[in-house]
Amino acid sequence: MKLTIDERMLHNEIEALAKISSAEPPVVTRVLFTEADLRARSWIRNRCLDADLEVRDDAVGNTFARWVGTDESAPAVGTGSHIDAIPNAGKYDGVVGVLGGLEAIRALQRSGFEPKQSIELLIFTSEEPTRFGIGCLGSRMLAGTMSPEEARGLTDNDGISFDDARSVAGLTDDLESVRLASGYYKAFVELHIEQGPILEKERKPLGIVERIAAPASSRITIEGAGGHAGGVLMADRHDALCAAAELVLALETAARSSGAADTVATVGICDVFPGAVNSIPARVRLSVDARDTDLARRDGVMQALEDACRDVARKRDVWIRSELVNADAPAESSTKCVDALVKACEKHHFEFLRMTSRAYHDSLFMSRIAPMAMLFIPCRHGYSHRPDEYASPEDIGRGALVLAETLASLAE
Amino acid sequence: MKLTIDERMLHNEIEALAKISSAEPPVVTRVLFTEADLRARSWIRNRCLDADLEVRDDAVGNTFARWVGTDESAPAVGTGSHIDAIPNAGKYDGVVGVLGGLEAIRALQRSGFEPKQSIELLIFTSEEPTRFGIGCLGSRMLAGTMSPEEARGLTDNDGISFDDARSVAGLTDDLESVRLASGYYKAFVELHIEQGPILEKERKPLGIVERIAAPASSRITIEGAGGHAGGVLMADRHDALCAAAELVLALETAARSSGAADTVATVGICDVFPGAVNSIPARVRLSVDARDTDLARRDGVMQALEDACRDVARKRDVWIRSELVNADAPAESSTKCVDALVKACEKHHFEFLRMTSRAYHDSLFMSRIAPMAMLFIPCRHGYSHRPDEYASPEDIGRGALVLAETLASLAE
Repeated sequence: MKLTIDERMLHNEIEALAKISSAEPPVVTRVLFTEADLRARSWIRNRCLDADLEVRDDAVGNTFARWVGTDESAPAVGTGSHIDAIPNAGKYDGVVGVLGGLEAIRALQRSGFEPKQSIELLIFTSEEPTRFGIGCLGSRMLAGTMSPEEARGLTDNDGISFDDARSVAGLTDDLESVRLASGYYKAFVELHIEQGPILEKERKPLGIVERIAAPASSRITIEGAGGHAGGVLMADRHDALCAAAELVLALETAARSSGAADTVATVGICDVFPGAVNSIPARVRLSVDARDTDLARRDGVMQALEDACRDVARKRDVWIRSELVNADAPAESSTKCVDALVKACEKHHFEFLRMTSRAYHDSLFMSRIAPMAMLFIPCRHGYSHRPDEYASPEDIGRGALVLAETLASLAE
Repeated sequence: MKLTIDERMLHNEIEALAKISSAEPPVVTRVLFTEADLRARSWIRNRCLDADLEVRDDAVGNTFARWVGTDESAPAVGTGSHIDAIPNAGKYDGVVGVLGGLEAIRALQRSGFEPKQSIELLIFTSEEPTRFGIGCLGSRMLAGTMSPEEARGLTDNDGISFDDARSVAGLTDDLESVRLASGYYKAFVELHIEQGPILEKERKPLGIVERIAAPASSRITIEGAGGHAGGVLMADRHDALCAAAELVLALETAARSSGAADTVATVGICDVFPGAVNSIPARVRLSVDARDTDLARRDGVMQALEDACRDVARKRDVWIRSELVNADAPAESSTKCVDALVKACEKHHFEFLRMTSRAYHDSLFMSRIAPMAMLFIPCRHGYSHRPDEYASPEDIGRGALVLAETLASLAE
């Protein structure tokens, strides 16, 4: 079997998909079930049909594109990633795993390979938490980590429920039908850009992910007292933004002093109400994200934030509510999948690094129902979630090639 | 002359105007030249025409409604305030001075009083800085404190220029025509809610303003480095929101430690970009407002903030730009106007407090071109710029009565 990746076509497809965005190029913004997201879904579906794959959507918009194997009833070998993008993102996050996975399948088709197990490309719905506040919505539901009841309880910032949002996208099937049976996949391997600087720093073209760090996120609401910026004296104030500023810095301090470089914590959203030049902030909402490869350290950071909430609320006489959005356990890759990736790299004499993913992926949840591993390629300066995110066509092609070899060996 | 205020009509008019809002009642939001603002302008114009006033708009939308005196060529006696409202505001800020001023004129008409000087109700354009970032836009231009060039240089957050915004409102006259000649007004007296708790605390129904505190405001932009909230280690971060949090707290500390209770400072806006759960903040914009009755103390607070910007930029390796939006000098009321207010209070045996306005009013700029004073009425708990802002019909009526007496004595 001689496998060749069509790097030029793959590059052109990545560029074409990047143009389907609700922001002006080169900025990519594709938020769940917006017009840009729906157009991108339609575009990718047509690409899959062109490759003679059998395409279906489930009730939450996960798209399955299957190359049916000779043993139709056997568990499939899965690969895939996501195409949704946070506001002001780049071209490669998720997309490399979707279009690289599709090109891996096409390369296998061109080589004359005939899979025994079906090989299935999976495009996850809402890996990004932008719209409903929780990431990996599609894979959580596939794995049963999120229940249909929890999904029905989600609303976006405009008060639109998840059920209403998906019905606008034409998805009306029963949410109970989404969960996959354990054993649906024989294995699941996701190709992704690293979203960090390690491969570039270590000058390695490939990373084989042995574990995924454990993310936790929460929403914090601070209710102070508003008023006119001139009329209320400092001694009488309960400024919600001043309270929020203390929490932002307390979280940063907790992450920096955890004792390990792996601990990270971020306040990515800070919404101020009413948000006028001459009004004292009455209410602030923060979103908090903390991650670590070590569960206890991460929980320590979240606890330090809880302590700060209590102290700041008392000191400033403001009301602070903290809601945990998710607190997931880390995942270990399966030895079988890691070994298949290692063999594929060795076959082509590609150097690789065994590593930890500190970013958060659908594979974290797929690991609950299938043997899982991930393959990373470098991205320039480690930049991701920004418009200047970049991965070279050569690195992407190399990743797709190793993925194709791996899928073939797992599907035999 | 027997003056009576129709408190019921005045109350009904305040309630009716409150319903002209781009937010759901009881919330009042009327941002400059939005549909709600234009409808409110039309409504108030009709009220003025019903009172047989001569109505004209200038090129920026200041509305003049004149009760022509027996000596048409003599300088007028002016009163008035604004009807624009920040997002999520209440019913009384500005409105009490406009509708109370109109009712004062109608009370004088009903009494048979014939003014020698014309009495003119002025409704200022854009007292609130919401849309173009600078407050008292109309009065600044009337006083010549803001030049037509400066006004032409203003743009809102959507990139719409002030000139384009006013032309949508049908205002196309030359901006050079706005400035009033010194001597246009013989005196200017503004009725307003206090927007602070002092009258309520001191149990005084009226406040006579002897000086207006000096406001300064600036916009601060912090440029850090974005990235994936999982992928970038703490040591490699240049988080713009963490930098902003330090500035928010530095400003608060500077205001609290000025040595005087009169010093206040507020960050009312904190916009985070890109503003996603799992993205490190790359850019933050803050709006800063600092006020004091003492110019040196206020400038000390602004300087402390500048110092903090420099220190935080260096420490965090982020880029911080601070732009001063305005830095106005305090204003003293005129003895003649204060005396007229005192006499009117004494005539009706109303108690009053001589006080300082720490909030910011069009009268600050009117004082540059006319003898000025202000009359305050209490508002509940000192609340303002929020939907539960409240002043009682009795307090409003009392204010309108004293205003009517004062206008009569000044116009004789």
